Amino acid sequence: GQRRMVPYAKRMEKMAFTANVVKGLFGSMTNPDIISFSGGSPAREALPVDTIRQLADEVLRTDTRGVEALQYGPIEGIRDLREVVVRELLAPKGIDCGVDNVIIITGGLEGINLACQAYIDPGDVILVEAPTFVQSVEIFDMFEARCVGVAMDDDGLIPEDLERKIRQCHPKMIYVIPTFQNPSGRTLSLERRKAVAELAAKYDVLVLEDDPYGALRISGEDVPPIKHFDETGAVVYAGSFSKILCPGMRLAYCAGQPEFITKMVTAKQGSDVHTNVWAQRVCERMLRETDMNAHIARLQAIYREKANHMMAQLDEKLSGAVSYVRPEGGMFIWAKLPDEVPAGEFARRCLEKKLAVVPGSAFYTDSAVDQPFVRLNFSTPTKEQIDRGVAVMAEVLAEMTK
Amino acid sequence: GQRRMVPYAKRMEKMAFTANVVKGLFGSMTNPDIISFSGGSPAREALPVDTIRQLADEVLRTDTRGVEALQYGPIEGIRDLREVVVRELLAPKGIDCGVDNVIIITGGLEGINLACQAYIDPGDVILVEAPTFVQSVEIFDMFEARCVGVAMDDDGLIPEDLERKIRQCHPKMIYVIPTFQNPSGRTLSLERRKAVAELAAKYDVLVLEDDPYGALRISGEDVPPIKHFDETGAVVYAGSFSKILCPGMRLAYCAGQPEFITKMVTAKQGSDVHTNVWAQRVCERMLRETDMNAHIARLQAIYREKANHMMAQLDEKLSGAVSYVRPEGGMFIWAKLPDEVPAGEFARRCLEKKLAVVPGSAFYTDSAVDQPFVRLNFSTPTKEQIDRGVAVMAEVLAEMTK
Repeated sequence: GQRRMVPYAKRMEKMAFTANVVKGLFGSMTNPDIISFSGGSPAREALPVDTIRQLADEVLRTDTRGVEALQYGPIEGIRDLREVVVRELLAPKGIDCGVDNVIIITGGLEGINLACQAYIDPGDVILVEAPTFVQSVEIFDMFEARCVGVAMDDDGLIPEDLERKIRQCHPKMIYVIPTFQNPSGRTLSLERRKAVAELAAKYDVLVLEDDPYGALRISGEDVPPIKHFDETGAVVYAGSFSKILCPGMRLAYCAGQPEFITKMVTAKQGSDVHTNVWAQRVCERMLRETDMNAHIARLQAIYREKANHMMAQLDEKLSGAVSYVRPEGGMFIWAKLPDEVPAGEFARRCLEKKLAVVPGSAFYTDSAVDQPFVRLNFSTPTKEQIDRGVAVMAEVLAEMTK
Repeated sequence: GQRRMVPYAKRMEKMAFTANVVKGLFGSMTNPDIISFSGGSPAREALPVDTIRQLADEVLRTDTRGVEALQYGPIEGIRDLREVVVRELLAPKGIDCGVDNVIIITGGLEGINLACQAYIDPGDVILVEAPTFVQSVEIFDMFEARCVGVAMDDDGLIPEDLERKIRQCHPKMIYVIPTFQNPSGRTLSLERRKAVAELAAKYDVLVLEDDPYGALRISGEDVPPIKHFDETGAVVYAGSFSKILCPGMRLAYCAGQPEFITKMVTAKQGSDVHTNVWAQRVCERMLRETDMNAHIARLQAIYREKANHMMAQLDEKLSGAVSYVRPEGGMFIWAKLPDEVPAGEFARRCLEKKLAVVPGSAFYTDSAVDQPFVRLNFSTPTKEQIDRGVAVMAEVLAEMTK
């Protein structure tokens, strides 16, 4: 007979719940009969397949680089890519740093994992936006941290509540997605970014600034990252190539003070040792040799059209019943349901009619409490799927409010 | 001023030492003036650069697959690759399992990390071969496990000492590299493999069987993995594509009972989410569409020639002074120095003469005690480098024994 391999590590107990939430989200994404407003993948047409194919071919045709791209590489990432990240991605955002401030990682979530590996002991408090990205909370659970939510409004997390929670809970880390936040689509205002950086310095708390969506602006003006206002090295900035290049290659980067980055490198040595070298070489060439501004403009046009289409459909078919703040970018609309409609039940009924939406409660640290929101993803579905999906939402709402 | 971001997580304290050992090894590998017998990389000529280039191109030219290869993928790995791993790699080794027994991971060390994530709490005991692979010990340190060494002889770890240590220390895991072990080059005998599987079942201990080198046999007969003798699901088998395909793509796999694999999948969700999909597609095509037997035979020929050359050089220039057991495969020769020559000092003097070798103590859990061995890697250096490197060893030995 098969042995029951118990007990598993203690950290796995806490993960079980969020793991199931996440699995539920991804499960419905892979069923082709279901229209998914529940994912967060780039649009098919946003993936630069031909460019990547050509660059990959070039990398492997160049003799030394071809061999180098397939050999073991440095744990912190290849120097050429770290340099181009500093010059082409960080400097233009107002993050002034050198190559020693940068580590290349295997997707944005690995950065969160490594930061926790380096810095979080069981029982440590991490402040998160309420709502926040469920997969990050899952990592915090894996490290047996205690997550405490900070209140948000339309301008992002509220500094007064942040300071109150810092004083109450003595957190070791503040996790924040300031731009086109997942799930709320909100963007933290300029003044509040300064305030967050100042509070982090004042109370000596690490800020993990997660910015996977920043390039995907569809309206409004760019705002500098929190890291731009960081004078003491209290902020670790995490950027990703998943949304501007592709997610399947698993490429992202973090920028922070060298001492902290060195600790993340040590943790990475005990994780996947280094990120796929070939993927790093392709990414480096893409940033150096192709017109990235034109590429980003093309992505923005794709997502602008999809977002505007979904908002037009919501306005047409659900006006008065559902309200939302127009996101200035990213991939998500955070839609408020009528007070009498429980979001969990709403999502279940939508799924019966083959539409997947994520109920708001999934994004709160206490996910047992119903929240009157659903997260709607506009990047993955086609226009036709958006039309049909919003029609399903209207049907279900009509049933539940009659 | 920059803040000092202390305290780091407790787990980082224990890692500091092994991290430095590993960094020392890798540091000397990247200096082109130094002949490195200290690495563990495949030979340049062993990398199938053109095949990978062609397959990668095909994957991205096929429309749906091209998009799929660049999108998010399943956490456990793409089904097609898991199926071909079951059929082409596991079944021929006598490991009878299905696709639910397999997870695709980002390099072999990620498997060790995820197994610990799932199963190891701080303070748990892990039994390891003495000597063992230093980078695995580093991961065990990161999980704050207590590593206890099990004695080996020329036939690998000694079952009687294993049973004694199991009774004494109540370990949760036994970590073993049974075939062409790193660093010792030893192969666990057939009878002892059965004994390890039986002891694991009898005492309810998980065996993590790490087999990155198994395909690189240069003499002798294949022996089934420990997993072949596992009747209760106590063994997790870890195979890697780093040595048979290339390390830079970071691809490996684990096979174990589905419940345990599911826990590893949950942990992976909180680590890098999934392994590079494009790399998985390339690997799947390579296994399905190319003559892998011919490829492996070519690799074996390359390493046979290099190993035989290094052994001939050792016999010619160091006969009588240095002794070793001829490895039947893998990448390493474990050479015993004369008793009066401390290996640490020997390695330091070699490095002054621009040859890097790893002193034996690096591979023991108590690395403060000198061990009269050095690990010599024959896969990376050229024949000319092997000649010069062994000459340096002879010079240093002459100095130290005169």
